[in-house]
Amino acid sequence: MKRTIDNSVIGFIGTGVMGLSMAGHLLKNGFSLHVYSRTKAKAESLIQQGAIWHDSPASLAQAADVILTMVGYPKDVEDVYLGEHGVIHHVRPGSLLIDLTTSIPALAKEIERKALERELQFLDAPVSGGDIGAREARLSIMVGGSEEAFENAVPVLEVIGTTIVHQGPSGSGQYTKMCNQIAIAAKMVGVCESIKYAEASGLDPATVLRSIEFGAAGSWTLSNLAPRIIQEDYAPGFYVKHFIKDMQIALDSSKELGLKLPGLSLARALYEQLAEIGEENSGTHALYKVYQYNQVPVLNA
Amino acid sequence: MKRTIDNSVIGFIGTGVMGLSMAGHLLKNGFSLHVYSRTKAKAESLIQQGAIWHDSPASLAQAADVILTMVGYPKDVEDVYLGEHGVIHHVRPGSLLIDLTTSIPALAKEIERKALERELQFLDAPVSGGDIGAREARLSIMVGGSEEAFENAVPVLEVIGTTIVHQGPSGSGQYTKMCNQIAIAAKMVGVCESIKYAEASGLDPATVLRSIEFGAAGSWTLSNLAPRIIQEDYAPGFYVKHFIKDMQIALDSSKELGLKLPGLSLARALYEQLAEIGEENSGTHALYKVYQYNQVPVLNA
Repeated sequence: MKRTIDNSVIGFIGTGVMGLSMAGHLLKNGFSLHVYSRTKAKAESLIQQGAIWHDSPASLAQAADVILTMVGYPKDVEDVYLGEHGVIHHVRPGSLLIDLTTSIPALAKEIERKALERELQFLDAPVSGGDIGAREARLSIMVGGSEEAFENAVPVLEVIGTTIVHQGPSGSGQYTKMCNQIAIAAKMVGVCESIKYAEASGLDPATVLRSIEFGAAGSWTLSNLAPRIIQEDYAPGFYVKHFIKDMQIALDSSKELGLKLPGLSLARALYEQLAEIGEENSGTHALYKVYQYNQVPVLNA
Repeated sequence: MKRTIDNSVIGFIGTGVMGLSMAGHLLKNGFSLHVYSRTKAKAESLIQQGAIWHDSPASLAQAADVILTMVGYPKDVEDVYLGEHGVIHHVRPGSLLIDLTTSIPALAKEIERKALERELQFLDAPVSGGDIGAREARLSIMVGGSEEAFENAVPVLEVIGTTIVHQGPSGSGQYTKMCNQIAIAAKMVGVCESIKYAEASGLDPATVLRSIEFGAAGSWTLSNLAPRIIQEDYAPGFYVKHFIKDMQIALDSSKELGLKLPGLSLARALYEQLAEIGEENSGTHALYKVYQYNQVPVLNA
């Protein structure tokens, strides 16, 4: 059915760094907002701005008719939607559910199937753009689900993002996010190897960047993360541990699809080495440390 | 010594696609131009515009005092400079030699050493930007050699390029070009794997691009070559066979430097498979065909 979003009560589950910014934009744009998060302290600033707190997803589900979720891992998505106190079992029929978490395509399909049984609409709608994109409401939102649900969601999604594309049926948002992560993974390997080669051959990596940044070697990673590597600033824009999670989802689903993706496999192997040396909570560009300490495994080159 | 380039007679060796455009710009900018190429027909249009033809590098070397070379492979660079009829043995002392070919760093150092013995200046100055960059005089030129030689060369290089950076002593231009190719190699793997995953998961790759092109996955490759892959247009911007040559130089020199670069090794292995299926003369983005035909080797993932 076609909804009028203007009168909707929005529920937001998961007010971590990303979710907090998103929920804040919804509040500022005049939506009535209910919130739940595993750690209440993380929702405090929203509550002070007028958001209504709930002690469980179930309680929130009973109050809202458009529910957005931004949690951590696929397991959390499963709990929040399908668990005993999950949204699916407590929300009113006709409600619209939007999962913004990067999660498993097959799980998205399963949630949609169960949502439809209860006459609910469900969209998988993972985002890219990171904490800065969330703060500035400039996220790219990749949406999977029915055309009707997508159209209903657009007025809400436009508050938090600028590039909102319906990619296809349920799971397509997650598949698209994996395309994004797959392109990033091997690219990061190339950037780290390029900087390591520059250093080893006696060049000044920052001067090398001046020569190569705007040509065929150019990329978001080279322009935004290579300078941080050179300055040894490994503060996380996006955590190593989350990237490993995403690469695992991509590898598992590519196996289901009968694909061999050696670039992705290599990147995952290198990132696992990185996690082993204690860099799980660094930014993804800390991959350079695997090269820096010469801890690269000999591959069958 | 400091030269006054305005009165220089320029010799240009190697008028293939790239060299032809470069030499044309020099002519149009009023330089007196002498040319030599292995195939005279390729220099015909320059001769008609007033360039003076020579039958050997040696003959050209005797007429010019600034010599630029843009040939194919390191073997050609060696022949043109150090061979029996090579430039080094016939050019006048005090001349400036600039090799624009992508070649081996150690060879650049050897040529410079021999050039200095004859009181010549030599620069390794490989370019990026491809045929379009050469045509539009918008190349990035990465220069290795002495500061003095670099300063002498700038007025000539500014005619063919826009980003002209002195990267360090002899060989540094080649090392920088390798940094460029290393960053490209793994990035291309990521882009191909991303498109293959999109297709296999039922997405429309062109629609996926709309979601991921301008975020963290974004790159020159994704914006410029992914659309050609999707349209199955594999016409060469840059040839597979030349890219394989470059990756071999990068791998050989990284071995000398004691580096392990598994992303580069993987890319080279995939491109060798591509060459084996007859795609040597396609553009580098034809790497997608290795995935398309599911001819990816099982790696130790």
